[in-house]
Amino acid sequence: MKGEAEFIAGLRSLANHPAARGLQDDAAVLEIGGATLVLTYDVMVEGIHFLKDQDPADIAWKLVATNLSDLAAKGAKPVGVLLGHMLGDADTRFLDGLREILTTYDVPLLGGDTVSGGAPRTFGLTAIGEATYSPVPSRSKASPGDSIYVTGPVGAAMIGFEALRDGKDADSLAYRRPVPRLAEGQALAPLVSAMMDISDGLLLDSWRLAEASAMSLAIDSSAIPISAPKTRHRDAIRWGDDYELLFTAPSATKLPMPAYCIGKVKERGTSPLLLDGKWLIDSKDLGYIHK
Amino acid sequence: MKGEAEFIAGLRSLANHPAARGLQDDAAVLEIGGATLVLTYDVMVEGIHFLKDQDPADIAWKLVATNLSDLAAKGAKPVGVLLGHMLGDADTRFLDGLREILTTYDVPLLGGDTVSGGAPRTFGLTAIGEATYSPVPSRSKASPGDSIYVTGPVGAAMIGFEALRDGKDADSLAYRRPVPRLAEGQALAPLVSAMMDISDGLLLDSWRLAEASAMSLAIDSSAIPISAPKTRHRDAIRWGDDYELLFTAPSATKLPMPAYCIGKVKERGTSPLLLDGKWLIDSKDLGYIHK
Repeated sequence: MKGEAEFIAGLRSLANHPAARGLQDDAAVLEIGGATLVLTYDVMVEGIHFLKDQDPADIAWKLVATNLSDLAAKGAKPVGVLLGHMLGDADTRFLDGLREILTTYDVPLLGGDTVSGGAPRTFGLTAIGEATYSPVPSRSKASPGDSIYVTGPVGAAMIGFEALRDGKDADSLAYRRPVPRLAEGQALAPLVSAMMDISDGLLLDSWRLAEASAMSLAIDSSAIPISAPKTRHRDAIRWGDDYELLFTAPSATKLPMPAYCIGKVKERGTSPLLLDGKWLIDSKDLGYIHK
Repeated sequence: MKGEAEFIAGLRSLANHPAARGLQDDAAVLEIGGATLVLTYDVMVEGIHFLKDQDPADIAWKLVATNLSDLAAKGAKPVGVLLGHMLGDADTRFLDGLREILTTYDVPLLGGDTVSGGAPRTFGLTAIGEATYSPVPSRSKASPGDSIYVTGPVGAAMIGFEALRDGKDADSLAYRRPVPRLAEGQALAPLVSAMMDISDGLLLDSWRLAEASAMSLAIDSSAIPISAPKTRHRDAIRWGDDYELLFTAPSATKLPMPAYCIGKVKERGTSPLLLDGKWLIDSKDLGYIHK
């Protein structure tokens, strides 16, 4: 779309506030009173972020889950959500899914707005969290020698998406009902040098973390845990929607949970990403570019 | 739309948190870390909340202004906003309008999400404010004998909308660039018994305030300040978008600014609204029902 990069650059130029990390870092961090708030805002559009005929209960779940995942990457505890809902078909199913996830994570619905609309249907959500550890983890503090970890396998969401799209039997749960790693994020927050959730693909998000930290990430693809057939491993590390946490920590750090070490942070070299000993030259085809 | 009322009732049943006034009261109020936060979320849809060919600079202004107006009604000071932006034509104009209003009110853009989409274009915004006075004003504490006030005239937005729609010369500024009454809201917060902004029409919003307070509002239409030709007075008090504040206060209250007294709060009678001595029997045709 013409002018899109300029628009986003323009938005960033407006976001000239110390708290305004939300345009590049998935969440804004705001000190207020004695608390550190973490604020996220995700929009999901029919045909782009969900399939046209998908069960609205799953859409509602995912809308909340993706925002809670952004909170998780900041080690934040959810405080509540605000919903922007476009009315349409099967709204009672949307309500069912919303109730399920809000109950599961004990998060109150605080408010929002309900509008009529058309196609494509669009839903938005703001999640408000309170940081459990300060400084709040960001993408930008990875250091040379740090180990790179993921909290769990990637690929199941890709397989689930394809199953759902093709009407096949395989389990699509991982795509439809992602699990925000809230407990893991809170446990890791005091220990990590950098952290983010994997929403757009492990390689693309690693590239972004490397860019934000002005480092290079050397990743060993054979060390990446993958929930997909061998023939799909190349795709699985380029596909998003798994919402595991990607983080870096000094190698001696004792982690509070099992996690998979997939590489090492290095001083910035030729590019942000060194995959199996080869420099990747651009971020094209490394994952899903959300627009 | 079928099931819409049920959906909204369902949402309200989910909003079972003391802070969850946001689904009926335009804003959620949240105590956190010694601060009282006020959170708003408004969605604007092309063809419903703005005209298809409207200047995106005006759309951006209004998207922020309506949320700041919700903060104003709570006596809150804006802390920042999160934007949900659907990319499309003339995004640089959107950016211009956004920059203008954020600069005018010294509000930082904290984050948000940018998505591609289609028609109708949809924009969302969350505003975060900090209450300047506690308890935060609500719609529900009007008492018998209180006077009813508005901060300024209604009707200019209606005239402005019609001028814009019809391509006529009359000034459309009041419709395109509403002014959130932030200073007024903060000055009034300690003094009012109930307060809200007039977004959907003076009569409809008065009806809602009466309902929330379980009172009746007796309004004298000749006392309502109106910026519209005499022939349009009936419409002007049923048209929204002016964003003046509607509030009630004990009659002896010394107000910190000029305001127009338009009636008295009474014990609940036949209906929520007594207009010029006649009970209005339902809220249909009293204003704009946002969906």
